[in-house]
This record gives sequence, structure tokens and C-alpha cells, in this order.
Amino acid sequence: MGSSQTWQDRARDKRERLAAAIPEDWRIKALPTSDSVIDYARSSGLLSADELKMTEATAASLVADMAAGRLKSVDVVLAFCKRAALAQQLTNCLLEYDPESALAQAKALDEYYSNHGKPVGELHGLPISLKDQLHVKGLETSMGYVAWLDARATQDSVLAALLRRAGAVFYAKTSVPQTLMVGETFNNIVGLTTNPYNRKLSPGGSSGGEGALLATRGSVLGVGTDIGGSIRLPAAFNGLYGIRPSHGRMPYADMANSMAGQETVHSVVGPLAHSAGDLRLFMKAVLGQKPWLHDSKTIPMPWRQDEEDEAKRRIKEKKLNIAYYNFDGMALPHPPILRAIQSAVDALKAAGHNVIPWKPYKHDVAMEMLNKVYNADGGVDLRRDISASGEPAIDLITNIVRPDARALDVNQVWDLQARKWAYQNAYLAHWRDAEAALGAAAAEIDAIVAPVAPSAAVRHSTFRYYGYTAVVNLLDLTSVVVPVGFADQAVDVANTAGFDPVSELDRQVQAEYDAAAYHGAPTAVQVMGRRLSEEKTLAVAEELGRLLRGGE
Amino acid sequence: MGSSQTWQDRARDKRERLAAAIPEDWRIKALPTSDSVIDYARSSGLLSADELKMTEATAASLVADMAAGRLKSVDVVLAFCKRAALAQQLTNCLLEYDPESALAQAKALDEYYSNHGKPVGELHGLPISLKDQLHVKGLETSMGYVAWLDARATQDSVLAALLRRAGAVFYAKTSVPQTLMVGETFNNIVGLTTNPYNRKLSPGGSSGGEGALLATRGSVLGVGTDIGGSIRLPAAFNGLYGIRPSHGRMPYADMANSMAGQETVHSVVGPLAHSAGDLRLFMKAVLGQKPWLHDSKTIPMPWRQDEEDEAKRRIKEKKLNIAYYNFDGMALPHPPILRAIQSAVDALKAAGHNVIPWKPYKHDVAMEMLNKVYNADGGVDLRRDISASGEPAIDLITNIVRPDARALDVNQVWDLQARKWAYQNAYLAHWRDAEAALGAAAAEIDAIVAPVAPSAAVRHSTFRYYGYTAVVNLLDLTSVVVPVGFADQAVDVANTAGFDPVSELDRQVQAEYDAAAYHGAPTAVQVMGRRLSEEKTLAVAEELGRLLRGGE
Repeated sequence: MGSSQTWQDRARDKRERLAAAIPEDWRIKALPTSDSVIDYARSSGLLSADELKMTEATAASLVADMAAGRLKSVDVVLAFCKRAALAQQLTNCLLEYDPESALAQAKALDEYYSNHGKPVGELHGLPISLKDQLHVKGLETSMGYVAWLDARATQDSVLAALLRRAGAVFYAKTSVPQTLMVGETFNNIVGLTTNPYNRKLSPGGSSGGEGALLATRGSVLGVGTDIGGSIRLPAAFNGLYGIRPSHGRMPYADMANSMAGQETVHSVVGPLAHSAGDLRLFMKAVLGQKPWLHDSKTIPMPWRQDEEDEAKRRIKEKKLNIAYYNFDGMALPHPPILRAIQSAVDALKAAGHNVIPWKPYKHDVAMEMLNKVYNADGGVDLRRDISASGEPAIDLITNIVRPDARALDVNQVWDLQARKWAYQNAYLAHWRDAEAALGAAAAEIDAIVAPVAPSAAVRHSTFRYYGYTAVVNLLDLTSVVVPVGFADQAVDVANTAGFDPVSELDRQVQAEYDAAAYHGAPTAVQVMGRRLSEEKTLAVAEELGRLLRGGE
Repeated sequence: MGSSQTWQDRARDKRERLAAAIPEDWRIKALPTSDSVIDYARSSGLLSADELKMTEATAASLVADMAAGRLKSVDVVLAFCKRAALAQQLTNCLLEYDPESALAQAKALDEYYSNHGKPVGELHGLPISLKDQLHVKGLETSMGYVAWLDARATQDSVLAALLRRAGAVFYAKTSVPQTLMVGETFNNIVGLTTNPYNRKLSPGGSSGGEGALLATRGSVLGVGTDIGGSIRLPAAFNGLYGIRPSHGRMPYADMANSMAGQETVHSVVGPLAHSAGDLRLFMKAVLGQKPWLHDSKTIPMPWRQDEEDEAKRRIKEKKLNIAYYNFDGMALPHPPILRAIQSAVDALKAAGHNVIPWKPYKHDVAMEMLNKVYNADGGVDLRRDISASGEPAIDLITNIVRPDARALDVNQVWDLQARKWAYQNAYLAHWRDAEAALGAAAAEIDAIVAPVAPSAAVRHSTFRYYGYTAVVNLLDLTSVVVPVGFADQAVDVANTAGFDPVSELDRQVQAEYDAAAYHGAPTAVQVMGRRLSEEKTLAVAEELGRLLRGGE
């Protein structure tokens, strides 16, 4: 690039390179105009029946088949490269696309297998998509900033390196909103990413490209990050499972980020997939690589099989104590979400588990602190990276980086951190009190079921309230999103008569509901467990998903 | 207190109350004038032979004897209360002393035992001393600030509550330097705490009161905190074992602190004792109480017996790989410390372990960052608590809170935190490289042996360089102090001829050495393991201590 290039030139150049990376034969000649493109690949004619089958399998079965020699990585990777090319043309979900390197990697893995008679690792040959915060050697990491275009990563991020060592193949990096601090996905490089279930809706954000790519089955396992809901919102809005591990469980080292070095509320990295089992596959494969030897913030805590087994025993014996809430006291969810929570409660009760109401503890206080954290520097860091290229800030971040925001001083940051810790500890006391109220000695509340957002997948530019996810970040709980169903205008009628808003925010959020517009939008709940409870919380989420599917 | 009281009035009142808390019969009629008071209690006549024996036993044997009904808690507690009274009169080590409540607690525990035929917990009846940062219901927590005097804690800190639940008895809280940010122990309330081995020397700091109290056997197990060496310096200067657990292993919630909310480098809490075994007893007892249910920052990681067992297997099979250094590149230790390191190296080699040199990685960079962290707010927090009573800042903190210090802004703090993480990760790479150089596949460096300070227990007001301990805080390694011996003027001759200082600091530190003045001062080394390696690092430290004692 030359310094004479405008930001528009650089963005256009990037879009052209992205478009050119799609082989001629994989280009859609006549783009569909339908709102939903979720099943486009099946009738596209681009993928063979075998390729369709591979892209609709679980990651666990794919790696099992490759480890047993029943599938070749080149075939699997080719299938996903094709389907991702369609996803990109339909939803604009990528910032990097590199089928050539991916197929070369896959070929090398197949050769290794054929020479050694065994896989290189637990993810041998599996294509994995990455949010465009992870560096992959040789690719760009623009993270939606025009200023960061054109620089090639000289090494993989720690997580990418460990995934690669376990046998993963990288073929695509997915789009994000400028700054990452938004629950939708738009940037000045590639523009808007849409939801494949209904392109009038958002795939959520900030891992929105992952959400869209996975939903179309252009990926079977993807990596997102979450500082306020950025894994869970795209999972919920695209009918996916997604886990926000607690801080320190997965390695974040050497990734690009906004507000790097901000440690009051940590961003965390974790997978999105089509099943809880595939999330577990990912977690176990990474932990099996001892990430704590490479990232100082990762806790030396291998996958605790005993915790998983104990959770499964409690599940089998119908001994779970599950708390739930459908209103955090701040913004009442729309009817489809209230119904999703009720479905989860009903399913758990019907299975014989103990389901009890949970009283959210001072979420207003949490939100006041979270807003201070996200605005701690008055937007200096975000504005620096935006303005470096001359590009404008996107409309969506005006709520996040307020023009009147003033930076905290160090003592205010320390005060905020001390208050955060006190709040976390008060929440622990609240949790212990709820357990004591169960009556039985040493009774545990295994998880809390709650909304992920007040709405199903939102209409573009309307996402407003992130409190359902962000409070979990402040508390650093483990949280797993479980898809429930879809908004249905026939049942999810607007709550007009009985609604008495507790605040202007509450009124605005509810007013945004439109039964017809949301019809068909995916719905979900999140299953929250204690901090660093990934084994148990995944097991509970997996069981809830099974029950919601009728116990299949 | 009335608002008309001066800070001098309030401090004097506190001293008078402390003195009055010592029963008449336990007061020393003629205070000794000797430098060493380490054995004073034995010839004092205050303690019976049984009481002397109890106070010189291990905590493990005391709790075993109480759990088996062979000892009563009132007798054990009485013995330590007496010996602590002597320690206080000899070294001025306490800020709180409450034998009355302690004996009442002990009586209640004895009654419980006699009614139920079993102990209340793993620490049943054991007196434990606490640094005056931990709140104990009903007692003051001045932490050396005059302004904080007179307020009574309304509840125990989480750690104190869990220790109490495990059966511990509280009888004394120990002195600290004003601000805690000093490697010696002086405040405007009780003045100077001295080293019982030689009262012309410092017990170190900031947990200096613990160091002095434990050294005299006025305590068998004490609690300190460490943000730059504050557990390890007092352990090293008083011939004790002490562990700096990694952040998140032990609960710090609801304790008083300086710079509360500062999370760039966390202060951690941990025990000091006369043996590695007693440190382990403490850690296991606390972890057995599931502290993570009460403190959000404590990691849900129970004592990992398998890690301890594996370490002990490697020890037994003489398979340890131990790295060591005796110079961090910043300030060469005095001859007694160079000899202590050599003793450790010789002992490990003689036992058959693999001992290799370690190259410290950019400790200058670490120190530059640490100084920024400790001065991040330009001293605002410390000055506020000092000036609240009108008391002056102590001379010792002029190096810490520089008058010209300027507060960082939020972006500078974030930048510092990002650099810290990068440094930690570079240190991990350095560690992996050293392991790769061992040759064998999957070979591990089990621990690094290094100085705790450039000197043996220092002369008052001369402690200057805390880099040997503080870099460990920046890296968040687990570190255990192992006592080695004593400075000996006959062998530890000043390094005059061969010394070529690398810096003015190096020159100043070395110039402070005086073979005669340091004669008899305790020496020690620290055994550093990876982050959150308490089980293994304690096992290695225990073995090193055993070997240094001739393999007893």
C-alpha cells in the first residue's frame, strides 16, 4: 500500500482480494434475494452429497473418521472451503479466506497419516474457523480496522499454534464489528454481516462472522471471543452452542485486541459449534496441549474428567438443582425469549430435576461498573485505531464510546476494581444463601438458566442492551449457550397490555419487538455455572439441549 | 477517641493498650540487652518444660496431638500466648495481642472435643498468628496506619473465617511497616520491630512482625502477604520457611490493604512456619474449606495430591532438574548469600539431582515495570492513609513513593499490563528453551533456586534492593523460602578485590556488606516453581531443606 491511499482505497482493495480468493467455480452466478439462505448450500449444486454430509456432521465424528482413515482431510477441508465460499457470498462473514493454504495443510496431514498410520493430534485434519483477532502466520489480522490491513502476521497466536499442533487446518477468519465492542457485525472494510436465517437480522457480534459462517455450516467449529457477550450473542442469534469459558481457562496470548492490557474485565476466547460435544472436543484438545506453558494467564488446569463424570452422574440420577430467571430487573425480554426460558424450565422439570427461581443480584450495580470499564479510557484506545486510517467510527459504537466519556484516573480504576471484587464476593454469598435455602446439607445449585439477550436475533442496528451477557463477564462465570428454537409470530405475541416498564431502557427494548419481523429468528438460553466450571456447565448445557430436542 | 487527639496521642494510647494486654506475671522484669534474644524464652522461667516443648514442636504434631486427645488446646494456646508476650517485649513485633479471647476460644474447642470426641477441623486448637492486614472480629486492623486505629472489625476476613472454621485460634496480629511497601518493619504506632537473632538487624518486611514472632517460637504458623517479597524476606531473615503462593490459590478477600484494587501485580497471602510440612498443613486446611466459594479470585483448585506424589516420586528417584542463579544481573548478593546458593547447589548435586545454571531473563525490564506498578498512582493512595491522621511518612518509603512520582493514565496502565503479559510469556518461552536444552524428551525444569535478597537479614534502614523477590511477583511464580544457615565472618569475607559493579545500585548494595555486622544473620534461598505449582514446589523445597540439614 502507498501512503497516498485513502482508507476507502485500502478497504476496496481488501474486498477485491477477498472476492478474488474465491475460485471462479465456487462463485454464485445469480445471488438469491430471499431473506433466508440457511439451506442455500444444499441446493447450490456446488457440494457433492458426500460434501454436504461432511459439512453437516459433528466435528467429533469428522476427527474420528479421519483418525480411523475413513476420511481424508483434503476432502473434509475442500467441502468446508466450498461451503464457506457460499456463506461469504451470502452473508459477508469473512475477513480472510485462504482455501489454497488450507488444502496444502490438509494434504500434508494426510501424508503424515499415511506415513505414520496415526493422526498428529486430537484435531487431525479438522478445519477450524477463527475470529479475525487470532493471528495466523502469513495472513492479515485487520480486526475490522482499516489501519491494520496489509500487515501479515509473522507467527500464530498461541491458541492458533496449539490448535495447529493438534491437527487443525485454518481456512477462514471471520468478520467483526469495528472496535469489537458491539453486539452486531459491521465494519468499514467489508460492511455488514447478515444472519443466514434471515438476512434482515443481525448475526450478533462481536464474533458475528463466526455465527453466520457456522450457521450455514461453512464451519463446524469456530473460535470467538467474549468481553460482554461476543461469543454468546452470535451463538444465540444463529442457533449454535457457544461457551464463554472463565478467564484463564483458554489461552488468549498474542492475539489482537481492542483496549489491549485492560484487565478489569478480561476478554476470553472460546469455541462456537453445533453441539455441546464439539465445544468439549475443542476444550479438551486445547487443554491437552498444556496451554499454560505458553500463556502466563492460562491456569494449569487440565480437563477435569472427574468433574464431568460427577456432573453426568447427577444428571443421570435427576439430581440437578437448576435456578433460572427470565428478567434481570433491567430489561424484560421479548416474548420469544420468555418462551425459550419457559421451554428450558419445563424440559428440566419434566426430566425430574429440581428447578427453582433465581433472584438476580443487583444487576444495575454490575451494569454501572461494566459501563465504567468499557469506557475507562474515555475511548482513547478505540479512537486511536479508528483514526489511524482516517476511517470514521461506525454508528453502532456511539453508545459504547460516548463523546462525553472521560477517562478514569488510576485511583478510580483501582476503586472500580475493588468494587468489582466486592460485588463478585457478594454474588458468591447470594449463591451460598440460595443453596442453603435448598434445605439439604451441601446441596449445590448446579447452574443458572437465563436469557442471552432480551431478543431473538435482532434486526440490524437495533441491538441495545447487553446486560444479560455482560454481567456474566463481570462475574467471570462459565456460560454455555444452548439453542432453543425460533421466534413464532403465531405464539409470540407482543406483550402490549400487561407490560409496565421499569425504566426508559426497558420500554425501548420492549418497543423494539415486532412479532412479524422476528418470525423465524433463532432463540436460545445460557446455562451459567460457577467460575471455572467448564466441565460441569458443559455437561448441564448438553443435557438441556438433549431435553429440548425431546430427549433424543 | 476524640478528634482533639493528635496522632501521637492515638499511637501512645495504642502502645499502652498493647502493653496492658500482657498479664503482669508475663512481663519481663529486667529486659536483656543482648543482641540475640532468640533463646530468651528457654531461660526465662515463664514457660514450663512442657510449654517449651509445645512451642518448639511442629504445627502438624500439635494438631495431631490435639486431634488424638493427647494435648488440650488451652494448654497449647497458653504456651504460645506466653512466648508471644516475651517476643513482643523483646522485638516489638505485635500490633494486636489478645490472650483472653484466645484462651476462651481454646476452651470452647476443648469442650467441643470432649463432647463430640473429634476435632472441629484440620487445625483444631492450633494458635495461628496473623499479619495485621487480616480482620479478626472484635480486633483493630491498623496495618500500621495511625488513622486506622480504634475501629473494631465487625467480621473476619475470609481467610481468618476459614482458618477459624478449621479450628484455628487467634491470639496475636503482627506488626508491619507503614504502607506495607517496605522490606523492613517500622511504623509510627509501635515503632521498630527487631530481628530476634540480632536486634541490630531487621526482621525484614512487610510481614516482619510475623518473622520475628515465629523466629522466637512465639508462633508456630503465621500468615503473611507478599506483593514484592513481604512473606519471603521475613522468612529468609528469620530462618523460616515461607511460601508465596501464586495469585488465586489462597483467599485474600475482605483483608485490609494498601492500594486496594490495584490488580496489575497482585498481593498474595500465605503462611510462614518452621517447616515445609507446616506450610503444607496450612495450605491443605484452607483449600479443604473450598475458599473459592467465598472469594471470587480464588481458583477452584483443591490440593492436588497427585502433583505432590509425582514430585515426591521424582525426588525419590533423584530425577529433579533444578536450575539456579546467584546473580540476577542487577545486584550481586553478599558473600553469605552466594555461599547459601552454593550450599543448596552442592546438596542437590550430592543427592544425585541434575543441577544446571539458569540465565535470568531481562530482570532489568521486570524491575522497570515493577517500579511503575508500585508507583502507578504517584503515591496518592498511600499518602491519603498516612495523612488522614496527621502522622508523617516513615523514612523507609521515600524510595517507594517518590516525591516526583506522577500517576499513570489509564492507557499507560493498560500498556504496562500488556507489557507485563508479554514479559511473562517471554519468560515462559525462556523456560521452555531451557527445558529443550536438557536434551531428554518432555524434560522439565522442576524449580529454580535463587537468592531471596542480596543480603542476609539486613541492618536496620539499609534494605535497598527487592528485585530478587519482586520479579517473582511480576511473574506470579510459586516460591518457597528455605533457610540455609547463618552468615559467618570467618568464611564470608567481603568481596573487595574481585568485585566489578555493573551499576551504581550494584556498588551500593555490595558496599553495605560488613562481615562482622552480619555475623550470625540467617541466610536462605528461594525455590521457585511455575505459576500455581504449590504442591510440587513445596515438595522440592522440603527436600532441599532436608538435604541442607544433612539428609536427616
